[in-house]
Amino acid sequence: MNGFVYDIPTKVYFGSGQLQHLGMELSRLGKRILLVYGGGSIKKNGLYDSVTWELKRMGLMFFELGGIAPNPRVESVREGAALCKKEKLDVILAVGGGSVIDAAKYIAAAACVDFDPWKFMSEQAPLKEALPVVTVLTIAATGSEMDSGGVITNLSTNEKLCRFAPPLQPQVSFLDPKNTYSVSRYQTACGTADIMSHIIEVYFNMTPDLQMLDGIMESLMKTVICYAPVVLADPENYEARANLMWAGSWAINGFIKGGKQQAWSCHPMEHELSALYDITHGLGLAILTPRWMEYTLDETTASKFVQFGVNVFSIHPGLPPMEIAMESIRRISEFFFHTLGLNRTLGEIGIDDSQVTLMAQKACRGDRILGFKTLYPQDVEKIYQMCI
Amino acid sequence: MNGFVYDIPTKVYFGSGQLQHLGMELSRLGKRILLVYGGGSIKKNGLYDSVTWELKRMGLMFFELGGIAPNPRVESVREGAALCKKEKLDVILAVGGGSVIDAAKYIAAAACVDFDPWKFMSEQAPLKEALPVVTVLTIAATGSEMDSGGVITNLSTNEKLCRFAPPLQPQVSFLDPKNTYSVSRYQTACGTADIMSHIIEVYFNMTPDLQMLDGIMESLMKTVICYAPVVLADPENYEARANLMWAGSWAINGFIKGGKQQAWSCHPMEHELSALYDITHGLGLAILTPRWMEYTLDETTASKFVQFGVNVFSIHPGLPPMEIAMESIRRISEFFFHTLGLNRTLGEIGIDDSQVTLMAQKACRGDRILGFKTLYPQDVEKIYQMCI
Repeated sequence: MNGFVYDIPTKVYFGSGQLQHLGMELSRLGKRILLVYGGGSIKKNGLYDSVTWELKRMGLMFFELGGIAPNPRVESVREGAALCKKEKLDVILAVGGGSVIDAAKYIAAAACVDFDPWKFMSEQAPLKEALPVVTVLTIAATGSEMDSGGVITNLSTNEKLCRFAPPLQPQVSFLDPKNTYSVSRYQTACGTADIMSHIIEVYFNMTPDLQMLDGIMESLMKTVICYAPVVLADPENYEARANLMWAGSWAINGFIKGGKQQAWSCHPMEHELSALYDITHGLGLAILTPRWMEYTLDETTASKFVQFGVNVFSIHPGLPPMEIAMESIRRISEFFFHTLGLNRTLGEIGIDDSQVTLMAQKACRGDRILGFKTLYPQDVEKIYQMCI
Repeated sequence: MNGFVYDIPTKVYFGSGQLQHLGMELSRLGKRILLVYGGGSIKKNGLYDSVTWELKRMGLMFFELGGIAPNPRVESVREGAALCKKEKLDVILAVGGGSVIDAAKYIAAAACVDFDPWKFMSEQAPLKEALPVVTVLTIAATGSEMDSGGVITNLSTNEKLCRFAPPLQPQVSFLDPKNTYSVSRYQTACGTADIMSHIIEVYFNMTPDLQMLDGIMESLMKTVICYAPVVLADPENYEARANLMWAGSWAINGFIKGGKQQAWSCHPMEHELSALYDITHGLGLAILTPRWMEYTLDETTASKFVQFGVNVFSIHPGLPPMEIAMESIRRISEFFFHTLGLNRTLGEIGIDDSQVTLMAQKACRGDRILGFKTLYPQDVEKIYQMCI
């Protein structure tokens, strides 16, 4: 059992009506704000007005950077950082989902350095400081609102790279489940698949760690499985949206990780897919995860699948282990493809096998994925093939 | 469902061998340290030497305040604060259990004000700042290492009072399960009862909140129930000590509370017992909790006991609800009195009913306890009677 450092300093205002504290929290951190948002849905649903009213009420000067795309581009980071430098901005306020927040984090870091921000990703350039980031979350998915990571895409090199660094941790996040009411059925499903994948990537691990954390991961997975269909049937169900939203933050803020050192498997494979085909991250994860499970299930890993099947899906523990394991994969497939209604194959979304060799090489960074089971490029290629 | 603010900024170094980071963390916060500890067990087991070696290695000046008693006294707080003022100390380092940490927190606050520290408790005097507190935990119990509360006893008025305030939150805590190996069987049992009570006080609540948090509380309770007997049989079992230790922090750091507003019940009743008879807090809680459960179980509350019985003790959900409820109380009694081996009654530890009327009045602060079920002084008196 490894030791670990637990350090999640983000303060979270959770619930409806908390936005009244936004101006006060921002003015603790600075006076000149960069407001970052996405494609404009916050203008339709009134959140843009609520946020800017708060800023004006507190006499805060703000500049805007809208139009952050899903799988946010390094170009947006460059643009935001240039604006921060030119206008001497001192706080970044992200209003949106994971893409907006990830872009905001790297804008905050890029505003503090003289080099091109893609070097943070491609060369692991030093990331020692960043402007403070405050977020108002609008979708339960990436958990970026409470972690120190971010994913940025460079379409000119077909790369989608992720990096964690403490200065990227948001200072304050506002989580109002009502702000997720207007998220579409498809995006809700993809966000839910992303949350589930974050837990699965940590849970499937053969190195013993704190059993307490396994129990908590099982609780989180059961929460997601319980409330996802409620949200899809009744998008304005506060209780269901609230449970999904808070589970989404705790799936990836570092708590469940404990001392586990293992690399993730499905995320690097998915990042190659969405870097090349620009598909929704959660959809890619949903398609990949059950195939990765099938590929990694064997005598040496079956016990983890049995634990998963018994504790999360209440499969009878008296059945033969391999039967429980296979049934658990069937159940999680059913969750992704039936409950969430996501596409079952890459073929269905128009992706063929022409790029699998290249993607497999890139997912392995020219080496291998040291995840739940070590995957070499030829393994990753087979998993991609199983998805088509 | 109420909103809430989540804010747990304590950084935790968890695991064996983390003490090498103590000096670096302290020197970020100050240069002149007050080292606070208890009855000297840390001198016997070598922890005192490890800690002071770290301080010397980093060239930190330190002063000592040893001899903090269980149920720490306001006199120790006065003494520590006076030393801080006289020697211009800037960080408090608590090495010990909940009593040492609670004393350290109030020393840290009292060092910043001109009035007598008992006014923090008796008059809710303003508590706006405190010196930074760093802890090295030696027993899994109160959770003080990761929360902003502390309990101080004034024997001259027979009062034991608790208060939470953000400046009391430790900045950094070191949790090494090996530092709990030498905790006696009795103190381990009492600490475990305290952890269990912290979860029960929050879990037993009829106002709906995030179901996700109920699931996590059930996981935490199952963790405690699973590992407590392992620790008692094998005190140097790292895995079991580690699970108990981390569960103890998460039982009370604020996470499981969510938006629940309800006051606690058994803690105020127990504080009167230990204020008057100086018994161990966890023992008092173990004796009180099952009687409080019996007293509060009725048609309106049975559903919570059913959830508890089914999800924590795996009692068959098909049984009649009241039967499940009563069986769940029998099981938790068995845990406290059989598994942990704690005394079953107040009578067994020499406490009679001569003070129950007075204690009931004080537990209700002359009014009532607005807990799981509202308890008036006559209710509390009956619960004390059931314990004798």
